[in-house]
Amino acid sequence: MFNKVLIANRGEIALRIIRACKELGIKTVAVYSDVDRDSLHVAMADEAVCIGPAQSRASYLNVKSIMAAAEIADADAIHPGYGFLAENEDFAAICEESGFKFIGPSSKHIAMMGNKSAAKDAMKAFGVPVVPGSDGSVADVKEGLEIAKSIGFPVIIKAAAGGGGKGMRVAHNEMSFMNAFEMARAEGANAFGSDEVYIEKFIEEPRHVEIQVFGDGKGKGLHFYERECSIQRRHQKLLEEAPSTGISAETRRKMGETSVKAVQSLQYENAGTIEYLVDKYENFYFMEMNTRIQVEHPVTEMMTNIDLLQLQLRIAAGEPLTLNQEDIRIVGHAIECRINAEDPETFRPCPGTITGYNIPGGFGTRVDSACYDGYTVLPYYDSMIAKLIVFGKNREMAIARMQRALDEFVVEGIKTTIPLHKRILEHHAFIKGEISTAFIERYF
Amino acid sequence: MFNKVLIANRGEIALRIIRACKELGIKTVAVYSDVDRDSLHVAMADEAVCIGPAQSRASYLNVKSIMAAAEIADADAIHPGYGFLAENEDFAAICEESGFKFIGPSSKHIAMMGNKSAAKDAMKAFGVPVVPGSDGSVADVKEGLEIAKSIGFPVIIKAAAGGGGKGMRVAHNEMSFMNAFEMARAEGANAFGSDEVYIEKFIEEPRHVEIQVFGDGKGKGLHFYERECSIQRRHQKLLEEAPSTGISAETRRKMGETSVKAVQSLQYENAGTIEYLVDKYENFYFMEMNTRIQVEHPVTEMMTNIDLLQLQLRIAAGEPLTLNQEDIRIVGHAIECRINAEDPETFRPCPGTITGYNIPGGFGTRVDSACYDGYTVLPYYDSMIAKLIVFGKNREMAIARMQRALDEFVVEGIKTTIPLHKRILEHHAFIKGEISTAFIERYF
Repeated sequence: MFNKVLIANRGEIALRIIRACKELGIKTVAVYSDVDRDSLHVAMADEAVCIGPAQSRASYLNVKSIMAAAEIADADAIHPGYGFLAENEDFAAICEESGFKFIGPSSKHIAMMGNKSAAKDAMKAFGVPVVPGSDGSVADVKEGLEIAKSIGFPVIIKAAAGGGGKGMRVAHNEMSFMNAFEMARAEGANAFGSDEVYIEKFIEEPRHVEIQVFGDGKGKGLHFYERECSIQRRHQKLLEEAPSTGISAETRRKMGETSVKAVQSLQYENAGTIEYLVDKYENFYFMEMNTRIQVEHPVTEMMTNIDLLQLQLRIAAGEPLTLNQEDIRIVGHAIECRINAEDPETFRPCPGTITGYNIPGGFGTRVDSACYDGYTVLPYYDSMIAKLIVFGKNREMAIARMQRALDEFVVEGIKTTIPLHKRILEHHAFIKGEISTAFIERYF
Repeated sequence: MFNKVLIANRGEIALRIIRACKELGIKTVAVYSDVDRDSLHVAMADEAVCIGPAQSRASYLNVKSIMAAAEIADADAIHPGYGFLAENEDFAAICEESGFKFIGPSSKHIAMMGNKSAAKDAMKAFGVPVVPGSDGSVADVKEGLEIAKSIGFPVIIKAAAGGGGKGMRVAHNEMSFMNAFEMARAEGANAFGSDEVYIEKFIEEPRHVEIQVFGDGKGKGLHFYERECSIQRRHQKLLEEAPSTGISAETRRKMGETSVKAVQSLQYENAGTIEYLVDKYENFYFMEMNTRIQVEHPVTEMMTNIDLLQLQLRIAAGEPLTLNQEDIRIVGHAIECRINAEDPETFRPCPGTITGYNIPGGFGTRVDSACYDGYTVLPYYDSMIAKLIVFGKNREMAIARMQRALDEFVVEGIKTTIPLHKRILEHHAFIKGEISTAFIERYF
């Protein structure tokens, strides 16, 4: 096992990594920016090194400073957490070249999954379903209609040069296809100076369902089932749960097996998440693969009773992956609410000093947070201040437990998303599990 | 299910009960003494009624005030927690007679187990092993020797009128028996004016191992395995864990089955704990039965993933006990540290105001506490201010997790037992699981 790990991150995920290291007897080195001097991750680590001023670019994204800190502290390995440098293939490569074990996949896999088109091609080759569509741009409406018919309606026609929602038209049947096709073309020509268009299957009100995977880098792969992450605002996850209410046991099995096959084929190492769009017929389509631990990993930990951070460290240290698929069982239902320092109506960040802080406890309740009473939430970084995760023997109990835990959660001095989570949890559609990525937009 | 439950208690257990009620959709009524106005259990309950001044006798033991509060609030049921009125058969009977469901066993069973001699006789009749010994007092040294030989050495000779350690002599073999017998007799005559003595098997450095049981009141009984509670100071538990390192799977099975048989024979209702002394040969002997939820119940909850407080409420409300023995599984190892506001050297209570409070979080970490930053620990009540419970896939991981969690636990302004727990957890004998009720005395 490692002797000493440097954590190239801050906030709750830095603390999460420190906890896992301590439990495995590994010494820890925190890095921090000027303004993070009083942070819990600094207090809890065995050593701490200041790596620059507040701005991320000058500190938490400052590869030179971080590498120097690792040298000075004589660390064996570097854990990047999520965000910042976690999916920067150059950083992973520099770690590797400098003799520090990067706790994550190889720089090659980070690069592959960072290029969305390369990732899609690779996954397709491993038999992972991707959103069906034309192979590149479409010559004319006749060819387009053939393609649309072959992949099935509804389809979306997209300007090849487009973006930001412009030059996109949905066609629900043959009748509307011709008009939609010409509209997308005209809009494309108008907005981007090109009338090239391509066609994709249109997924209506999809769910965002992701599979947690692990690989040992030698061809062994495991999945830890899915996380349901459809409750989002502006593509930012707000609340996650597992298992998903939107897939059957059969789809769960298929998604797991498909994902493991990809991990095995890639000879992927360490933790990863394969994100899918799932339609109402439970068809699932590859969206992207995140080559790091996710914010919402505790949902999976509580659902399976397995410590994923420790597993990351063990795999990175070269321990054989003795865990087998049949050891990974769903023991109940877990939900996570991301508590952000934000106005719950406008989602505008609300940094400031916490003047009163009480976190919930008791059976089946977990809090991952680097806050404390008197802590000042800084404007420089992400607004997430805590993750509240609950376990219940079933979804109904997990919802009830989350409601009582949110009632206990007191954060004074700043605005948070706690009121929003309360509203989500008592919403009839959420309670019935009838959710999609359109949930927040539609109901709130 | 109940509409409204009154909680006849304070502190962390009142909060524990409120949490379980909220999760089951039950309204709660807190009661509090004058000085507990700012307590969390008051803040978290739906309603709260002041029942008298600080002294327990005038408030938390004041049956009239509590019954009046239940009447005024129109509660359906009363949960007594532990301590205070929890094992007062008169209180249970008054609840029953007044039409409030007492959440616990019948007053008859409370009375039976409250009388230690009646409890022992009853348990013996159900086939529960009790400490072997003479049937009452022994006529002379010859009869005494016969009895000693039949139950096996070592034996303890006790003055029938004795107490406080006086008039007690241990004999390890036939040679020393005669002398010990005469000494005990003489001491008894001297100290208590009676030379009557009786003989019991002497259990050397026993473990305190208890079995958590539940009954549905109609003859169905379940056990939730054992809790190892040998780490005590002055017969007060300090640290509990489950499973026990001192019993084999076979002994575990036997202790569970024996305990369930007693629960079934008694037609016992609700939660109970059967406490045993276990010797180094894994013989186990009934000590007493506690007819309430125990302080250390979270150890069992974390080891089995089952919410025992909810189970109490469900059984009391008359729900059929659908849980079966095979549904109750050991999923890992759990440890609880009782954090007391005490000098860790002298065990003297240290009430006062908490001026800084940070509780540990993260994977497998649970805190049950009614404290918060700025809370004043009162001199009137028990000094326990928090329970820290951890889960690990095995004992080694549970110990490592408890160590890192204790490191994170900050209580400023008062002294606590946190330093003592740290010392216990790093002690070589504890780490090896070589513990008995003599552990603290011997090593600390």
